[in-house]
Amino acid sequence: MLSTMQDVPLTVTRILVHGTLVHGSSQITTWTGEGQEPHRRSFAEAGLRAAQLAGALRDELGVEGDQRVATLMWNNAEHVEAYLAIPSMGAVLHTLNLRLPAEQLVWIVAHAADRVIIVNGSLLPLLAPLLPRMTTVEHIVVSGPGDRSLLDGSHARVHEYEELIADRPTTYDWPEIDERQAAALCYTSGTTGDPKGVVYSHRSIYLHSMQVNTAQSMGLTDRDTTLVVVPQFHVNAWGLPHATFMSGVNMLMPDRFLQPAPLAEMIVSEQPTHAAAVPTIWQGLLAELTAHPRDISCMKTVTIGGSACPPSLMEAYDKLGVRLCHAWGMTETSPLGTVANPPAGLTAEEEWPYRLSQGRFPAGVEPRLIGPSGERLPWDGESAGELEVRGPWIAGAYYGGANGEDFRPADKFSEDGWLKTGDVGHISPDGYLTLTDRAKDVIKSGGEWISSVDLENALMAHPQVAEAAVVAVPDAKWGERPLASVVLKEGASVGFAELRAFLGESVAKWQLPERWTVIASVPKTSVGKFDKKVIRRQYADGELDVTEL
Amino acid sequence: MLSTMQDVPLTVTRILVHGTLVHGSSQITTWTGEGQEPHRRSFAEAGLRAAQLAGALRDELGVEGDQRVATLMWNNAEHVEAYLAIPSMGAVLHTLNLRLPAEQLVWIVAHAADRVIIVNGSLLPLLAPLLPRMTTVEHIVVSGPGDRSLLDGSHARVHEYEELIADRPTTYDWPEIDERQAAALCYTSGTTGDPKGVVYSHRSIYLHSMQVNTAQSMGLTDRDTTLVVVPQFHVNAWGLPHATFMSGVNMLMPDRFLQPAPLAEMIVSEQPTHAAAVPTIWQGLLAELTAHPRDISCMKTVTIGGSACPPSLMEAYDKLGVRLCHAWGMTETSPLGTVANPPAGLTAEEEWPYRLSQGRFPAGVEPRLIGPSGERLPWDGESAGELEVRGPWIAGAYYGGANGEDFRPADKFSEDGWLKTGDVGHISPDGYLTLTDRAKDVIKSGGEWISSVDLENALMAHPQVAEAAVVAVPDAKWGERPLASVVLKEGASVGFAELRAFLGESVAKWQLPERWTVIASVPKTSVGKFDKKVIRRQYADGELDVTEL
Repeated sequence: MLSTMQDVPLTVTRILVHGTLVHGSSQITTWTGEGQEPHRRSFAEAGLRAAQLAGALRDELGVEGDQRVATLMWNNAEHVEAYLAIPSMGAVLHTLNLRLPAEQLVWIVAHAADRVIIVNGSLLPLLAPLLPRMTTVEHIVVSGPGDRSLLDGSHARVHEYEELIADRPTTYDWPEIDERQAAALCYTSGTTGDPKGVVYSHRSIYLHSMQVNTAQSMGLTDRDTTLVVVPQFHVNAWGLPHATFMSGVNMLMPDRFLQPAPLAEMIVSEQPTHAAAVPTIWQGLLAELTAHPRDISCMKTVTIGGSACPPSLMEAYDKLGVRLCHAWGMTETSPLGTVANPPAGLTAEEEWPYRLSQGRFPAGVEPRLIGPSGERLPWDGESAGELEVRGPWIAGAYYGGANGEDFRPADKFSEDGWLKTGDVGHISPDGYLTLTDRAKDVIKSGGEWISSVDLENALMAHPQVAEAAVVAVPDAKWGERPLASVVLKEGASVGFAELRAFLGESVAKWQLPERWTVIASVPKTSVGKFDKKVIRRQYADGELDVTEL
Repeated sequence: MLSTMQDVPLTVTRILVHGTLVHGSSQITTWTGEGQEPHRRSFAEAGLRAAQLAGALRDELGVEGDQRVATLMWNNAEHVEAYLAIPSMGAVLHTLNLRLPAEQLVWIVAHAADRVIIVNGSLLPLLAPLLPRMTTVEHIVVSGPGDRSLLDGSHARVHEYEELIADRPTTYDWPEIDERQAAALCYTSGTTGDPKGVVYSHRSIYLHSMQVNTAQSMGLTDRDTTLVVVPQFHVNAWGLPHATFMSGVNMLMPDRFLQPAPLAEMIVSEQPTHAAAVPTIWQGLLAELTAHPRDISCMKTVTIGGSACPPSLMEAYDKLGVRLCHAWGMTETSPLGTVANPPAGLTAEEEWPYRLSQGRFPAGVEPRLIGPSGERLPWDGESAGELEVRGPWIAGAYYGGANGEDFRPADKFSEDGWLKTGDVGHISPDGYLTLTDRAKDVIKSGGEWISSVDLENALMAHPQVAEAAVVAVPDAKWGERPLASVVLKEGASVGFAELRAFLGESVAKWQLPERWTVIASVPKTSVGKFDKKVIRRQYADGELDVTEL
């Protein structure tokens, strides 16, 4: 028995048309620097300009079918227009991560076969030197201030964004699109191997946008303004540009002004009710506000993700009247996987374990925990396993393998198609996820798992330790054992035996590392996470000065 | 270019499994009468019992494929179990409206070919006399208190709900279901012709549930409790049983205790944060609270639909700390079509026009306004036309026409597949819908439309008028002209000329009715709406005593 419902596809086009018409008066405000009047553009105007952009890409630049159109841009109104226009015309939006190493950027552009790059003028110093090696690129469209002469002599045709779209029709005959077609492409900045492309569909973006807008997740409405600090090149700015256009949520866009002082400035000036960014941003802003106090309590809720938020940071913002709310996700999950809203009826004290967890899963993200021997683990709040997830906005493959077909590496996807997140943790009986480790950072010692993160946190609690990274190293007897590498504070005088004894106060004896080393700093990835593979390689190559206790 | 997203269908099964596991501690509380401890059941328990019910329906009653399983039930935990189990096993949930005339109930059961009816014991006095004529029905499953002997001698096998599911496995091998398959069936209680069946798909229910849970719509979370007064047999209780299970929202179910006093009682006792019901319910509760004041301010928001809410009612509840929020929809729209949340930054006074409107459309409901000559009208807040809508949870046909195939009457569906809502109104430039009339109640007079509702409201403002209904009647010169039928208050002495003059103070002269009649009461449909076709027929048959002014 078939339903009698209309068969209407879930597409970015619907989001574009809806936001333009129903929420035409909502605003995209782009910061333009201290003392400058911010740039303001209504959804109605952005929607009409998106139609002009689509027309220009098709008629002037010859974009057709599902060709990739890349962006190398900050968060601003023009980038939102690209988010709407490119998928709606049937092409594929490819957001380039401007923090990636140059080699990876060149590799990604070639892999995606980008024909067009829309770039902010301020990023030309980054793009111009790489452009000669980006041979698939035929057109560069430049938006905003910056030195165009850097592109002189380029093999690509250079266009001015505003000139390109000016005087074009403000309507576009948007094609009917199958909701499972590609809409956007994003490469993971993994620390091993080549970057891997995740291709979002119109359907996944539409469903993810609805999820972002549920009261359970970010809960934004047309009465809100969200400060989108998380970059649009970082997993679609957590889905916000599409979700906001779907519900008429006003956007405050920082463009390139991501330093603490301008962020404080734009919050005070524009009074957003919500914001989204990684913990580092909120650490920086807190220091700024400590030095120069300002009232930022307009932001009732801040969604924080990318890495775990230190409890002290949440407490500090609680005092400022701003609630930091954990969310967990990854490029492969669109990214919304969990959001940490505590249950009702708890005291502030009782809420802490829930707020520090990664949060609860929505219906669209089905989880399971897989133990060290591949067994399915119970949700008892204790059993730790690797998290695997399934759902309509979760990747089931990566784009374009060696033979040109999508590929499913066995360490990333289970045989029955679930995504292996590479995150290790436990789930409580009431469905709250707590992550403790990356799977590759867990130490498999004699059939048991040791959490490297637990050891690191315990070590970093020592007053003379600045940073600590614990990695698994091969061990003849136990399979693996932990290696503790510590960064000492200036003038520190503590010895390894003392650190080991300190660790023994909070960690089981069999988990205590035998191998110790002092390092100058913990290696970091391009997005600021601990890059443990570097330490493992240094250990394997004998480059570290290791003491055995 | 295909996306690399997983292909996971949107099904009620996912809602069932998710609610059971992640929100197992959320509660369904069913009222059992004054002084009785309410019945409490966790989502975990309801989920396991849904698996038992599915097992019983398959193994004991032989339900297979997409057979219809009907419910004739109040709002209670067992009805929620049926909502989850029946679609998830691949069968089709058919909710029977217990307020329908007996003939229609018999007709509907035959049309749907219901094999099984799950019935509350308290409704056996309604069902038992009709059962002999319900020849497709092979099984009756009785739940809750009521006199079973009424079923003695029935041709159908009679089962006790609790006995039927007891001792069965609490797991069920839920089938993989195509999201476009039928999940639920609901007949419109139209005032003309046979009832028409609307078949919801798994996809439409899933998407509608997400929409209900957006902050823009009802915005419910696992920290809320919703009092579901709107019956589960009335357009799926506005989607709440599925939406709540999706987000872990606690449900407070009134069962058969729908009178003002027990409603007040359960609000005070269980402290819901939200409720949903038609205006009549809130009128009754207000009278009860005026007579016996109680604090109901726990209910921050009340979703009100089914018919327009009088401003005085909104004002009265504002004073009680409860915000009544208009929503518009119909059986054919699942039903969520619009919700009336005013924009930000308005004073209470400025909010009124927005609160009294039907509200703003979500992205899943695409609207257009069609004028008297079939032309598309602008959204200028003035041009009045018939509303047509399109979207993934909007009907595109009715179930099972004369030849067994789905059918699309030309007065209900446009040639390009949009639903003609039969509602007439205008849309503001910022996307707010205001309905003024039913299309069939608009008076087409000399190429212009006269709103019958405007005339009725103006008439009912007269102190001696209790009720008024205005209908179109044929007119040789103008095509149609309004007939005013008024119900006078006891002891009223006002004449038609005086009423016409009174009307002239607020209505354009060319709209003033020439034909007047006094009636004893306005005929109503089974759901309490003005049944104007009765008056039109009485006029045509010469049964009314009409004065021409």
